[in-house]
Amino acid sequence: MSDIPTRVQINEEGPREGFQFEKGMIPTARKIELIDALSETGINHIQVASFVNPNRVPGWADADAVAAGFKRKPGVEYTALWLNVKGLQRALATGRLDIKGSFSLTASKTFLQRNQQRSMEHNVRVAHETIELYKQHDIPLDRVGIMAAFGCNFEGEIPQQRVLDMIQQMLDICAERGVTPKVFSLADTMAWATPKSIKELVGKVRERFPELTLSLHLHDTRGMGIANAYAGLEMGVAIYDSTVAGLGGCPFAAHKGAAGNVCTEDLVFMLDEMGIETGIDLDRLIEVAQLAEDIVGHPLPGSVKMGGSLKALRAKLN
Amino acid sequence: MSDIPTRVQINEEGPREGFQFEKGMIPTARKIELIDALSETGINHIQVASFVNPNRVPGWADADAVAAGFKRKPGVEYTALWLNVKGLQRALATGRLDIKGSFSLTASKTFLQRNQQRSMEHNVRVAHETIELYKQHDIPLDRVGIMAAFGCNFEGEIPQQRVLDMIQQMLDICAERGVTPKVFSLADTMAWATPKSIKELVGKVRERFPELTLSLHLHDTRGMGIANAYAGLEMGVAIYDSTVAGLGGCPFAAHKGAAGNVCTEDLVFMLDEMGIETGIDLDRLIEVAQLAEDIVGHPLPGSVKMGGSLKALRAKLN
Repeated sequence: MSDIPTRVQINEEGPREGFQFEKGMIPTARKIELIDALSETGINHIQVASFVNPNRVPGWADADAVAAGFKRKPGVEYTALWLNVKGLQRALATGRLDIKGSFSLTASKTFLQRNQQRSMEHNVRVAHETIELYKQHDIPLDRVGIMAAFGCNFEGEIPQQRVLDMIQQMLDICAERGVTPKVFSLADTMAWATPKSIKELVGKVRERFPELTLSLHLHDTRGMGIANAYAGLEMGVAIYDSTVAGLGGCPFAAHKGAAGNVCTEDLVFMLDEMGIETGIDLDRLIEVAQLAEDIVGHPLPGSVKMGGSLKALRAKLN
Repeated sequence: MSDIPTRVQINEEGPREGFQFEKGMIPTARKIELIDALSETGINHIQVASFVNPNRVPGWADADAVAAGFKRKPGVEYTALWLNVKGLQRALATGRLDIKGSFSLTASKTFLQRNQQRSMEHNVRVAHETIELYKQHDIPLDRVGIMAAFGCNFEGEIPQQRVLDMIQQMLDICAERGVTPKVFSLADTMAWATPKSIKELVGKVRERFPELTLSLHLHDTRGMGIANAYAGLEMGVAIYDSTVAGLGGCPFAAHKGAAGNVCTEDLVFMLDEMGIETGIDLDRLIEVAQLAEDIVGHPLPGSVKMGGSLKALRAKLN
């Protein structure tokens, strides 16, 4: 287990993922309340909003107001998602966000078409344009990645060779544009990964691209999120996206098929108990997970917010 | 990953664990319905009832009626739990169960006192008496084990050396009585384990007792169940207890502190996708998990019953 990192970077995506997914309208003030609470947990990276078409994602019609309203805490990065120039310009206009460039190719052409209405070739053109746009705005290219890297609900298995080829393609695009991404993300967008496939793919990626700093974006739709994160740790991956309380998913049958990101506090619990540093206060985070449930008004998937941390238990015993 | 087994034995404990835990009275006919449905999934070992004091566990007041009513399917073992001679005699009297002897020591004296009102010394005496009783009735000693092997809510950390010593003690008791248990179970009774502690303890046990066939009894209270099972697989453990739909736990705050066994269909999903045989039909099992939710009348913790199997998805794609 010598590859297991001693410190892990958690990128909290709960606000962005969660409020995009919820059916009812969440008041802007409560979105801000969640972000401000997250800022007090020791989390140093929070994706706070999504600047996307409000007709397609009504839950983020108030992205500008949320960005204007939360309290910036020193030492915390506040990022956002956008999918086109207009979205980026909205994010820039807030003047309150840490604007980080990112771009992902998608390993399934069917999913790409359904999700972003683009062909593979079109997406490569957009990759060039987007990275060029970042350069014009002096925006650092923080991360690139491959979506649907472990399987696709519309195509089935994704050959690992294809993912390796697309990583090369993404790196070639970056090289052509004269930029070097900080992090390379592999996303299990539709929850096909198992610890076995995580180890296999990450192993192959590390072998062929030993210079890359990898991150994992994991979903828990089929209950594999934490086990997959553990497999990633064993392969030396030290950067994970996650959502507090598992925002973005729901244990109710009415929300069947929900994305369900891996849950931040469950992940932090595992890391804490394995002696891996995150800088995050688990007990505070559990309170925020309970707040998230109150805000969305229904149970959320995470376990530790119910089972309780062992740190709290140990403190009571001593 | 050469230690990962090619076949895993699942012991389904959903009926026994689940109906003991539920607050309302579940009709006997519905308990039988669940057992009969489980029998059709390919599961070959089902713990169907608990012959315990109905004043302490009212949910199992009808254990005799349940044992009398379910349909025995050839090739499936139907077992039960008892904690004393009276319980064993009730189980024997049904004439319809596979009576398998078992006994566990407990690594936490505080938990042992609270859970079974016995001191460590008293429990050792009971161990001798119980194993002797099995011999008198020609009941094979199927499994022995250590409860609270990974930590205790009332004592905190459990030193691994203590667990190793208690394994020796349990084996000494068996040797003194002239019997050899088939399986040695390590139970994470209060959900303290992480993949790291699973690997460490199982590694030490395998090193000191290489002749033992180990099994793991895992709880998911803090979301580590599947990751812990994966760690067990990597250590070569090929026998797991689990409960369909995660019966015994509940994602509702009203059930806070619920035990929450690791969920059978989530475990089978992982094993299937990793190419490890179980003999279980996952899609049928998912239907039984949904039946279990219907029977208890509230959502249960498992994920795959919501997210769906990939086998079903692949079949649709092809």
